[in-house]
Amino acid sequence: MSKLKNKHVYTFGNKKAEGNASMKNLLGGKGANLAEMNLIGIPVPPGFTITTEVCTLYYQEGKDRVVELIKPEVEEAVRNIENIMGTKFNDNENPCLLSVRSGSRASMPGMMDTVLNLGLNDKTVESIAKKSGNERFAWDSYRRFVQMYGDVVLEMKPESKEDIDPFEEIIDMMKEEKGVELDTKLSTDDLKELVKRFKTAVKEKTGKDFPNDPWEQLWGSIMAVFGSWMNDRAIYYRKLNGIPDEWGTAINVQAMVFGNMGEDSGTGVAFTRDAATGEDIFNGEYLINAQGEDVVAGIRTPQQITKIGSERWAELAKVSEEERKEKFPSLEEVMPEVYKELDEIQQKLEDHYKDIQDLEFTIQNNKLWLLQTRNGKRTGAAMIKIAMDMLKEGMINKKTALMRVEPNRLDELLHPVFDQDALDSGNVVAKGLPASPGAATGQIVFHADEAEEWADKNKKVILVRIETSPEDLKGMNVAQGILTARGGMTSHAAVVARGMGKCCVSGAASIKIDYKQRTLTCDGNTLKEGDWLSLNGSTGEVFEGKIKTKEPKMGGDFGELMKLAEGITKMYVRANADTPYDAKVARDFGAKGIGLCRTEHMFFGEGKIQAMREMILAEDEEGRRKALDKLLPIQRADFEGIFEAMHDLPVTIRLLDPPLHEFVPHEEKEQQEMADLMGISLKEVKAKVEELSEVNPMLGHRGCRLGNTYPEISEMQSRAIIEAALNLKAKGINAIPEIMIPLTGTLSEMKMQEDIVRSTAEKVFKERGDRIDYLVGTMIEVPRAALTADEIAQSAEFFSFGTNDLTQMTFGYSRDDIGKFLPVYLDKKILNIDPFQVLDQTGVGQLVEMACKKGKKTRKNIKLGICGEHGGEPSSVEFCHRVGLDYVSCSPYRVPIARLAAAQAVIREKAEKKVKKQAKKQKKGKN
Amino acid sequence: MSKLKNKHVYTFGNKKAEGNASMKNLLGGKGANLAEMNLIGIPVPPGFTITTEVCTLYYQEGKDRVVELIKPEVEEAVRNIENIMGTKFNDNENPCLLSVRSGSRASMPGMMDTVLNLGLNDKTVESIAKKSGNERFAWDSYRRFVQMYGDVVLEMKPESKEDIDPFEEIIDMMKEEKGVELDTKLSTDDLKELVKRFKTAVKEKTGKDFPNDPWEQLWGSIMAVFGSWMNDRAIYYRKLNGIPDEWGTAINVQAMVFGNMGEDSGTGVAFTRDAATGEDIFNGEYLINAQGEDVVAGIRTPQQITKIGSERWAELAKVSEEERKEKFPSLEEVMPEVYKELDEIQQKLEDHYKDIQDLEFTIQNNKLWLLQTRNGKRTGAAMIKIAMDMLKEGMINKKTALMRVEPNRLDELLHPVFDQDALDSGNVVAKGLPASPGAATGQIVFHADEAEEWADKNKKVILVRIETSPEDLKGMNVAQGILTARGGMTSHAAVVARGMGKCCVSGAASIKIDYKQRTLTCDGNTLKEGDWLSLNGSTGEVFEGKIKTKEPKMGGDFGELMKLAEGITKMYVRANADTPYDAKVARDFGAKGIGLCRTEHMFFGEGKIQAMREMILAEDEEGRRKALDKLLPIQRADFEGIFEAMHDLPVTIRLLDPPLHEFVPHEEKEQQEMADLMGISLKEVKAKVEELSEVNPMLGHRGCRLGNTYPEISEMQSRAIIEAALNLKAKGINAIPEIMIPLTGTLSEMKMQEDIVRSTAEKVFKERGDRIDYLVGTMIEVPRAALTADEIAQSAEFFSFGTNDLTQMTFGYSRDDIGKFLPVYLDKKILNIDPFQVLDQTGVGQLVEMACKKGKKTRKNIKLGICGEHGGEPSSVEFCHRVGLDYVSCSPYRVPIARLAAAQAVIREKAEKKVKKQAKKQKKGKN
Repeated sequence: MSKLKNKHVYTFGNKKAEGNASMKNLLGGKGANLAEMNLIGIPVPPGFTITTEVCTLYYQEGKDRVVELIKPEVEEAVRNIENIMGTKFNDNENPCLLSVRSGSRASMPGMMDTVLNLGLNDKTVESIAKKSGNERFAWDSYRRFVQMYGDVVLEMKPESKEDIDPFEEIIDMMKEEKGVELDTKLSTDDLKELVKRFKTAVKEKTGKDFPNDPWEQLWGSIMAVFGSWMNDRAIYYRKLNGIPDEWGTAINVQAMVFGNMGEDSGTGVAFTRDAATGEDIFNGEYLINAQGEDVVAGIRTPQQITKIGSERWAELAKVSEEERKEKFPSLEEVMPEVYKELDEIQQKLEDHYKDIQDLEFTIQNNKLWLLQTRNGKRTGAAMIKIAMDMLKEGMINKKTALMRVEPNRLDELLHPVFDQDALDSGNVVAKGLPASPGAATGQIVFHADEAEEWADKNKKVILVRIETSPEDLKGMNVAQGILTARGGMTSHAAVVARGMGKCCVSGAASIKIDYKQRTLTCDGNTLKEGDWLSLNGSTGEVFEGKIKTKEPKMGGDFGELMKLAEGITKMYVRANADTPYDAKVARDFGAKGIGLCRTEHMFFGEGKIQAMREMILAEDEEGRRKALDKLLPIQRADFEGIFEAMHDLPVTIRLLDPPLHEFVPHEEKEQQEMADLMGISLKEVKAKVEELSEVNPMLGHRGCRLGNTYPEISEMQSRAIIEAALNLKAKGINAIPEIMIPLTGTLSEMKMQEDIVRSTAEKVFKERGDRIDYLVGTMIEVPRAALTADEIAQSAEFFSFGTNDLTQMTFGYSRDDIGKFLPVYLDKKILNIDPFQVLDQTGVGQLVEMACKKGKKTRKNIKLGICGEHGGEPSSVEFCHRVGLDYVSCSPYRVPIARLAAAQAVIREKAEKKVKKQAKKQKKGKN
Repeated sequence: MSKLKNKHVYTFGNKKAEGNASMKNLLGGKGANLAEMNLIGIPVPPGFTITTEVCTLYYQEGKDRVVELIKPEVEEAVRNIENIMGTKFNDNENPCLLSVRSGSRASMPGMMDTVLNLGLNDKTVESIAKKSGNERFAWDSYRRFVQMYGDVVLEMKPESKEDIDPFEEIIDMMKEEKGVELDTKLSTDDLKELVKRFKTAVKEKTGKDFPNDPWEQLWGSIMAVFGSWMNDRAIYYRKLNGIPDEWGTAINVQAMVFGNMGEDSGTGVAFTRDAATGEDIFNGEYLINAQGEDVVAGIRTPQQITKIGSERWAELAKVSEEERKEKFPSLEEVMPEVYKELDEIQQKLEDHYKDIQDLEFTIQNNKLWLLQTRNGKRTGAAMIKIAMDMLKEGMINKKTALMRVEPNRLDELLHPVFDQDALDSGNVVAKGLPASPGAATGQIVFHADEAEEWADKNKKVILVRIETSPEDLKGMNVAQGILTARGGMTSHAAVVARGMGKCCVSGAASIKIDYKQRTLTCDGNTLKEGDWLSLNGSTGEVFEGKIKTKEPKMGGDFGELMKLAEGITKMYVRANADTPYDAKVARDFGAKGIGLCRTEHMFFGEGKIQAMREMILAEDEEGRRKALDKLLPIQRADFEGIFEAMHDLPVTIRLLDPPLHEFVPHEEKEQQEMADLMGISLKEVKAKVEELSEVNPMLGHRGCRLGNTYPEISEMQSRAIIEAALNLKAKGINAIPEIMIPLTGTLSEMKMQEDIVRSTAEKVFKERGDRIDYLVGTMIEVPRAALTADEIAQSAEFFSFGTNDLTQMTFGYSRDDIGKFLPVYLDKKILNIDPFQVLDQTGVGQLVEMACKKGKKTRKNIKLGICGEHGGEPSSVEFCHRVGLDYVSCSPYRVPIARLAAAQAVIREKAEKKVKKQAKKQKKGKN
């Protein structure tokens, strides 16, 4: 803090300001915009901003030091308000009243404290009464101030929401005494009595008199607002939104303006465009004779600002034009002059900020004051529409339009969503991780095969499992959604669900599943098979019963945005897809190839799993080859389908990866089936299944370790790939296979697999008398592969970073088990974020970067990509761009997100370079 | 090969030589020593050496190119032999006979081919007969030559040992015809007939006549010996001994000398000292009228060379001096002149080579010829004694003495061993990994608790398990040895067994264990509980029945060697020890502290496991704290014991590391016990146990993830450590605790644990009114910890590399499951060595080095050590020295090995620096 700037207070008012919009870090968003509004001539109550640096100082050195440091500046700034308003703070004749509000860099609505009407005491209240000619207003303001100050500064607000606010208790008693129901029905004398009783309560509770000195009130409020930066709500909100504690909040002190001074006063909020749809239509709500909090409080129903808004409202309410004018009078009609000024101001603000604005205003005796403007929050759909509209209107350029859309928000457009009202009234029975977005409602089933049976009967089901495995794939595919009690954001259930674009809530740890009883229990509540359940995959909430859903709409703007992105990206986007259908979806979303085609999923179809099991259970190579001969035509046909769907685009096929134990039958019935099929005893089947079980299957006999111990498997798969490509070539379809070796850790592992692939390919070429081009490369997913990438690149023509496994091994986290400690780790901030969701650039990223450099050193033109889940996460995509990957690959439904993120990465990089260049220039200039 | 030297053939003979002892890489060990012997005046049959480079050329460009290249040189070299011997190759009057022998850089005894008596044909055989005056000798030599040439060069030797050599078949027929039993009883005419029949067999088999031309014989033999470098035996031997295929073999061609020319001829082998005990006594064996192969063949019993040897022999055989002279005549007595010369030569050779020599000699008509000298192979005990004796004799300096002992060979001195004869006659029923050296014989038991019961009845047991877990600890402790069907060299069984200094064979995959039937089956052979079994932990062999063992002896030389090492090492050695007993053993072996004290093993003792289980099964923090209160005094007492044993030396205590699932009861009986103890239902216990199970426990909820989710555990352990140290301080005993956080992956994980440790310590200090010094540091065992070591060092005062887990995660190998593919990987050379045995310097080592650099960058004086299994493996110890570790820590029984390896690392490094310096100087000189 020794580097603290000498200036701690920035004044604004009367179209002058010491700050401006670019100073958000120092002045907070609100403060910066208040200054900026003054600079562009918008009427704003004068005031000043205490910087965020002072907040940091508050937490480091305490209140006294803060007062000592900023006192002269604050006093000077208050004088500035007095001068502009022609009033005087702490003056009994013409008192100046102030508001004290928080305002941090990022918007944290309602999380911190506010004090209004500051400066009132037993004397100033009389002057205000006289000046406003409205005694009731003066005393109402006074009692509100005492309550607010008592709650916030004197900490009389109870911590728990269930306890009653002592002031509310007094009001309730008073209303009872007076036999009225609404506060507004209390008389001026009642309000005077309230103030008295409030002050007695304060004295009782704190042992001190309520402070009459406005300066004492002001310093108390400033410290309380700084203190509220660290209240539980604020901390929780920041954690949810990834806002660092270190930022601190600024404080805005302004002259009070009153919307509750009578029928020529009012207050409201407005958006310059429609934040839900993006439509370019000014809209908002207001209340006559009210203060800001009344709009939010919901006691009185606010009215529409525009006439057209009022008319739309009336249409929904099915009332006549007559009734409309009476019941839903618009500001446009009630105060046409004020409305005209407001409309001009909103246009001016949007033109100035070049983005949708969210305004707060107050009308005091027909005079319009703007209290706040900020960029409006909006839905994903609105985000796209506004960006593309503003681009067409010439307000912003292409780069800005692209940067205006948060890539992750595109997700909203790609999955069905719940109806918000239905959601609000739903009964949440559990909460898990928001594993795959979307909305799902269906009947509970506990087994994948039953999911299939029920689905065959046109029933909608939710598959509920402790965790899922590849065996559950078909059941997952027919379910509306998947709920698991175990597993994180990248558990099997989560990954597969996202790949399918299917709603999934994973790791709902409070749920107990009893497969035998076919029940799920949470908090004593027991649901059984067939009961209805709804999942919100975007929040992780689990609802009892049915919740209404609606289909999302995708407009032409979406396509135009993608085209914009296309024009700017260096990195291209592929998709992870295992079926022709997924491949088609991906291609439609603009994927430029398949980055990961998992061959193991192909073995779970009808008639395939038996041959696969036969291969695994075989006693020797001969037995395995016999079974593999059966699998060959099946695999070849699968590859043909995918190659055809992706004609002219590369398809990266990963050879068999998971431990064989995942394929064998675990139920005795199925084991007996296999025994009969193979003509061996049940005991032998059981013994083999037992033999295959591993303590840590993740680190066991899988990946290329399978292909190297059973070369005949890699041989069969290579043959299926090459034959499929040649078959298509004969039909005039161009297949571009890239054969990928999984879990490589050493050059010799890679080389041995490469040899098998190449020799098999040459054999097939010879048999067919024709050739095709193909690549052989590897996943980089074992830390050692990254560390020795220079060696491995001697054999691998491409690297594809499998950052799921790389994250598992670099952190030593099993994604199947991370649910045991991840919630605590996030809660205690040991981890800021789930590394399976967002690539850990510090640790895992170091390995990725190292492998890129080493790989290129050995093989200059090595193709580099990523096929882990991170390939569809925007910040990770940006990292991939920075380290120089050629492509990212993600699930089909995230392709648009990745495409946009890739474009933004380029824009951001250029901007950074520009800044650096300028900094260099400046430095040069100075020298 | 374009850089091939122009000289390919090096001649020697008559006390001159073109090569010398330093040219082993080019001339092979044998060739270099033959040259050297000439240079120091030892009588050696003249000859020449064809270089190893020619062997490489042979494999790259084939026979013809080799002949083309070296023909002139070979012809010139043969002329040199002729000149010295006064004979002529390919001459019917005075023919020169030659031997052709392999000789690679490293000794590969008996692995490659040899051709003797080369140059004989129907004409020269007559000259030899005439010249030697011994027709039978001539024809015997001839028939031996034809057989050897047929087998080796004409490839008539059958591939399988079970098939009969065609020449042996002919001999057997002949002996039958003649009614004799021994070859020696065949007459000269019989031998002539044999040659005839041999040649017929050759013609039949190869379709060509047996070559009469000596030059053709010579070239054929040279190519055959080169070819034998790649025979199966040789390849296998090289794999076993880590000899690269690229080295190739040299070939030595020498004039033949004959020990079978009559009673004034003979042959023998000798050692300059006793290779078994190291005693400085010349010893060896010889045979009169015999060729080299007869000594080895075992048809005639060789006699002792020295009189004292003969006398010792007689003593064992309990015969009188009279009988001794007749039955066991020594060379010293039979040929005193020759003996005297031999004795002088052996002394000369040892003085020259300054190491024990292994000699081969032949006496032809009373003339002594040395055929070979090389450093003698010896036992670990002999290795030490010889090194220390030679040091005392002033023959070698301290550094050389230290370098003479292979650190791993010390192991032989530290564990009981089998009697070799008993071993040779044992029946091997299975083979596993040599997990922990030593010899064990006992009765089979399959359960740890039964092992305890049987041991209580003074029975010796071998504990046989599919794999072991911490629950088996006590059972393992009372067993003679442990045999597991699963798990590698660093599986639980292996690590614990080595720690205990107990014999263990792990991963004997061919064994099937049936716990229910209490049987183990391998290759159809079924053994049951109570049957006797013997394990050789040094070879991995499993024997049926009992094998006699003997106790090893350790002399004062051992201590002196350790003292020597001490004087030179930079790195010091600590031990991994969990009990006061182990700590004492380690201290006795010279450990300078404990590098890893695993606290979890302490929880398995009497009465401890219940409290531990109570803690784990508790519903909430309060329940856990209640159970932890019971554990506190137990842990404190354990720590007091260890601190006392290690007074004045540092003890690194690792906080709780394994997943909690390892501690809970898995048998229903025990689960019921816990339920009763805790007053909850069996169902609840079962549910909790189930809840704790993980898919990949290795990557699950363990290490500091436990201490961070349940801080009260770390708190209790910290308190126990600090209180124990203070208790000892009160008694005047100095405890130096170093508290180690396991499985750290991020700075915040470390910081949170550090905070718990430090705040607990401060609390205890305050309570006791006294303080002690202690350190807080971390294991580096997660790749991410190594990658972000600069961050982690902000909190950690020391790093201890847990290279077991680091290897698991860097390779992605589960050491519990690696048995599934490791044998195949080693066999196919995908891995050259088990990375859990020998540190993978390329991959894992990169992380270790990186972490050292990054750690030191942040904290200059950070203490660095290793506590993985690699800390006791010599090549890994050398790596640790090179990257700058302060200490290595290993199991108590490996402390001496590590101490020696650490000293050798310093010597080797200095030697390398010297070489570099000289190279630099030379370069400077040239410029």
